[in-house]
Amino acid sequence: MIGPIDGIRILDVSRILSGPFCTMILADLGAEVVKVEMPGRGDPARNVGPMVGHDSASFISVNRGKKSITLDLNSENGQNIFRKLVPHFDVLVENFVPGTMAKFGLDYQSIQKLNSALVYLSISGFGQDGPDAHRPAMDIVVQAMGGIMSVTGEPESPPVRAGVSLGDSVAGVFAALAVVSSLYQRIDSGRGQYIDISMLDCQVTMMENVFSRYFSTGNVPGPTGSSHPLAAPFQAFKANDGYFVVAMLTDDQEIWGNFCNAIEREDLHKDSRFVDNASRVGNLEALQGYLAKTFIKKSRFEWVEILSNVRIPCGPINDIQAVARDPQLIHRSMLTTIPHNVNGEWKVANTPFNFSESLTGPAGPSPALGEHNREFFSSLLGLSNEEIASLLDMGVI
Amino acid sequence: MIGPIDGIRILDVSRILSGPFCTMILADLGAEVVKVEMPGRGDPARNVGPMVGHDSASFISVNRGKKSITLDLNSENGQNIFRKLVPHFDVLVENFVPGTMAKFGLDYQSIQKLNSALVYLSISGFGQDGPDAHRPAMDIVVQAMGGIMSVTGEPESPPVRAGVSLGDSVAGVFAALAVVSSLYQRIDSGRGQYIDISMLDCQVTMMENVFSRYFSTGNVPGPTGSSHPLAAPFQAFKANDGYFVVAMLTDDQEIWGNFCNAIEREDLHKDSRFVDNASRVGNLEALQGYLAKTFIKKSRFEWVEILSNVRIPCGPINDIQAVARDPQLIHRSMLTTIPHNVNGEWKVANTPFNFSESLTGPAGPSPALGEHNREFFSSLLGLSNEEIASLLDMGVI
Repeated sequence: MIGPIDGIRILDVSRILSGPFCTMILADLGAEVVKVEMPGRGDPARNVGPMVGHDSASFISVNRGKKSITLDLNSENGQNIFRKLVPHFDVLVENFVPGTMAKFGLDYQSIQKLNSALVYLSISGFGQDGPDAHRPAMDIVVQAMGGIMSVTGEPESPPVRAGVSLGDSVAGVFAALAVVSSLYQRIDSGRGQYIDISMLDCQVTMMENVFSRYFSTGNVPGPTGSSHPLAAPFQAFKANDGYFVVAMLTDDQEIWGNFCNAIEREDLHKDSRFVDNASRVGNLEALQGYLAKTFIKKSRFEWVEILSNVRIPCGPINDIQAVARDPQLIHRSMLTTIPHNVNGEWKVANTPFNFSESLTGPAGPSPALGEHNREFFSSLLGLSNEEIASLLDMGVI
Repeated sequence: MIGPIDGIRILDVSRILSGPFCTMILADLGAEVVKVEMPGRGDPARNVGPMVGHDSASFISVNRGKKSITLDLNSENGQNIFRKLVPHFDVLVENFVPGTMAKFGLDYQSIQKLNSALVYLSISGFGQDGPDAHRPAMDIVVQAMGGIMSVTGEPESPPVRAGVSLGDSVAGVFAALAVVSSLYQRIDSGRGQYIDISMLDCQVTMMENVFSRYFSTGNVPGPTGSSHPLAAPFQAFKANDGYFVVAMLTDDQEIWGNFCNAIEREDLHKDSRFVDNASRVGNLEALQGYLAKTFIKKSRFEWVEILSNVRIPCGPINDIQAVARDPQLIHRSMLTTIPHNVNGEWKVANTPFNFSESLTGPAGPSPALGEHNREFFSSLLGLSNEEIASLLDMGVI
């Protein structure tokens, strides 16, 4: 079996997270991804966070299965070599602040002439046009401006961000989908195209349900902790060994009865304040009080088993160690290993694809800086050993 | 211009959010999506949340541009009609609890024989196999079990969920990518395939950075409010009219100098406790105290302008109303309208695609229940008016 986009070659000048997360997914789907990095320094992500050997753990994870060449895009020489590479690739990915690739003379208008079949993807914080286009962005900035921070956390506490860089990674997944969609269309049209993905736009798409509530009621939604604005019981509860969640989103009398029966609180089933979902939402504080007293009496795993037996959606709130040890995730190979030059192997989170007829997943280790210079500059572009040595000398590669 | 996957036909028996969010994206990319709904009741999402006319606002948003037919998959008659539809479609999407489609006799093994080119997508909470496969799931359950709740919120407060249903919607985006990747591969192979996407798996993929930190240090990451575990200042601050975020992830002396200069706190620049990023993280509490006193003196828009001028990533924490009015998002058409039978039009969040050569975005209103029965049962399958009337009578459609 091969990956679904096996044979696709990607020239990737993106750095840090949004672009590299996108090309991680495309590499896991079978593409050959060639990172273009600054000579000497490389992708800044190589040095951010806990190090494992020469590179950060995060770099190793996001850049698995990719190749690395070095090229100084600030130099005319580097730009010329880049232009010579372009005809050999199907996709170009960049995530500089808008305008940077034009400054290099490598914007879509210039590059398109060299390869009309090229799919050229730009990811940026706010998009390529509009009043904020040229502002720098980071995950937390788009989480703040896209609205997710305004609905996350406790009602009276200071704002909190979702604890992972969703601003980058969600944009990376949408961008990967845009690339593969363009490759699909290219089969008929024979032509590539330009794709402009904004991290902030992607945040807004994910918030559609919150916008729906706002547009229909005019009420501005706020943070609700772990609870659901329209359902109860639907939140975190404390067991005697930690937290778990219960998620009842139903008006079915029988399910509410099963719930009360399973936790041995028939009194709640008979209580007219809790007779249907709307009543339970209306009398949430009283309901929470009763349930808290019951749930503190057993462990969260006992409760999850008791409630699962009557088919109420529920689960423990797992910390990262518990997630890494979860039998379901182990069964699904969601924590997997890649080769590593110092440790022998290194553990990473897998991509979530399971195809019956296609191979997916990490294809190899992350590359050392410039590890594949010879492969591309010599084999692909036909540069001589002397030329390569001279380019190295000048700091162009 | 046409959508990149124009001409693709999707038979969609999914309900609520994960599947419908996936097919919303595929419809926005140009596919023809036909919802198959229970006669009389339809997708339960039609009735969840604030209503706008006959359907909920959320249903209208997620199901824009789709068609609707009714079919009772519990009845043999309904199953037979479903089998007759299958050869006319490229993709099938379902998100029942695993085993349900097999119970209907409509699992991949059975259906594949009718259409070997069919891409058959299953989305579920935990995947099609493994010890938890048959448990029901909801967004909050996979947020809990996937680890994001363990790193979101304030350190000493009860756990909070990310305030939108990322468990569903992130799975929907990955699933859409898996479908288009399979369609791409199908052009060469001529064959479809089975795709198994788990909401929990998708959560784990998004957590890759958190796993990297855990695997490299052995420390179990906890919630950090709005702050960053490895950078400072990188968090929310209170201005005199609300909160804004600052995101400095650098060791560049000059940038730190620019920051202090811009906020007129040269004393902090000279303070040896804050001389580089590591020192600022180490002395975070002191730094936060000084900055809080400065930032409370002006409005968040003043601070955003001051800091943007020296190219420090920053932005206001917007509530949903502010997001809906954001000039950048208006410029990017991220809040757009679809036709609506009661209101004339209805506002929805757009998808984040911008292609130079492809058309994308909402293609029309959400369908009334069974609105397209005639189109598919009569035109496509050739059923007579009498046959359709009789099926209606029996509650099969």
